[in-house]
Amino acid sequence: MTQIPLERKVLGENDRIAAALREEFQRRGIFCLNLISSPGAGKTLLLEKTLEGFAPGRRVAVLTGDIQTDNDARRLARYGFPVQQITTAGACHLDARMVERHLANWDLSSIGLLLIENVGNLVCPTSYDLGEDAKVVILSVAEGDDKPLKYPLMFRESALLLLNKIDLLPHVDFDIGRFRANAARVNPRLEVIETSARTGEGIDQWIDWLRARVGEAASGRRSCGET
Amino acid sequence: MTQIPLERKVLGENDRIAAALREEFQRRGIFCLNLISSPGAGKTLLLEKTLEGFAPGRRVAVLTGDIQTDNDARRLARYGFPVQQITTAGACHLDARMVERHLANWDLSSIGLLLIENVGNLVCPTSYDLGEDAKVVILSVAEGDDKPLKYPLMFRESALLLLNKIDLLPHVDFDIGRFRANAARVNPRLEVIETSARTGEGIDQWIDWLRARVGEAASGRRSCGET
Repeated sequence: MTQIPLERKVLGENDRIAAALREEFQRRGIFCLNLISSPGAGKTLLLEKTLEGFAPGRRVAVLTGDIQTDNDARRLARYGFPVQQITTAGACHLDARMVERHLANWDLSSIGLLLIENVGNLVCPTSYDLGEDAKVVILSVAEGDDKPLKYPLMFRESALLLLNKIDLLPHVDFDIGRFRANAARVNPRLEVIETSARTGEGIDQWIDWLRARVGEAASGRRSCGET
Repeated sequence: MTQIPLERKVLGENDRIAAALREEFQRRGIFCLNLISSPGAGKTLLLEKTLEGFAPGRRVAVLTGDIQTDNDARRLARYGFPVQQITTAGACHLDARMVERHLANWDLSSIGLLLIENVGNLVCPTSYDLGEDAKVVILSVAEGDDKPLKYPLMFRESALLLLNKIDLLPHVDFDIGRFRANAARVNPRLEVIETSARTGEGIDQWIDWLRARVGEAASGRRSCGET
């Protein structure tokens, strides 16, 4: 993202749409998360395991972003929840207008939890508010324990970090203690849940985290809504 | 990168500077690579192993991009070659002007191989020509064998792919055959070298690849210079 005045205008327009989305989500008691990671951190498999954790008929919906393919939507549609692919045709992030446009296809009164899987990119999506209640950053242990320091904005703006692929810990040079210290340095309030979408470890804890917030959103109370 | 007219202007200006850099590199017989990957694919450790493979006094230099820290330059400076950090202060890619500005500090007649480590991002750096002879994409097997299809532009524009962290192959769901088929689908001419910066596997082959091209550049012949 080049630092140019026009960008501020684009972001201003984005913020306006995102604010309207946020207001609508709050009015309807929808809890919305914006899930962000590098390519290959395991977002889609994590989402599959997440959907498995909710009984069909629960009010969960997914928007999944990709630059080119609709592979993720096809993978996620198998779980019986509404899923839409947002294909950005080259753009490196989702923006609020893309979300607004795709939500127009849905009856929002049937949704309690909206999961938005952003494009695989640890930098640009941070600048584009989608109206979410919170950002969740997903990091694979294969990416290294220094990442909070190298990509601080993402970690600073997130409410929760899913530290994924922890089944790989014995095989990579990743020091959990050093990682937690690095994460706390850029965001002392960042919650961390260790997960392995592959083995299922930590998925229950993540789903409990979700359920608690969906319940709060539905009853009009918010724990991390004032982003 | 938002699709706006101003972006075309910014890219036009970038292309002008990149063309001048390319001309200067060719005139001086410098072979220049633009190394691109997601965060955590192992670019910096690969560069460390690469520098270890060249005797001190060889004409190698490194520009290393990062959004925030100068950790990489400090790691790379230990090998006795000239290294400069380009800190982008939030921008998600290097551009030609950043490269031009940092090269002004160096005597280019002392350089035969210039390695540019881009910011960790598999999307945006693709759009910014840095005057390089070729792009090299680095992918960790932990990222998944579907990545050429999901981020096709990067794989299409690269001359070489370093498939890194192959020591993790027994521990991840990565099918080399499927990966090679996916890579060939987006770029049939893409060379692939399998590496593990951690175990050293494949590093010799990569250094041989480099040496051959540095030799060609110095003698005025180019194998992948017409990008």
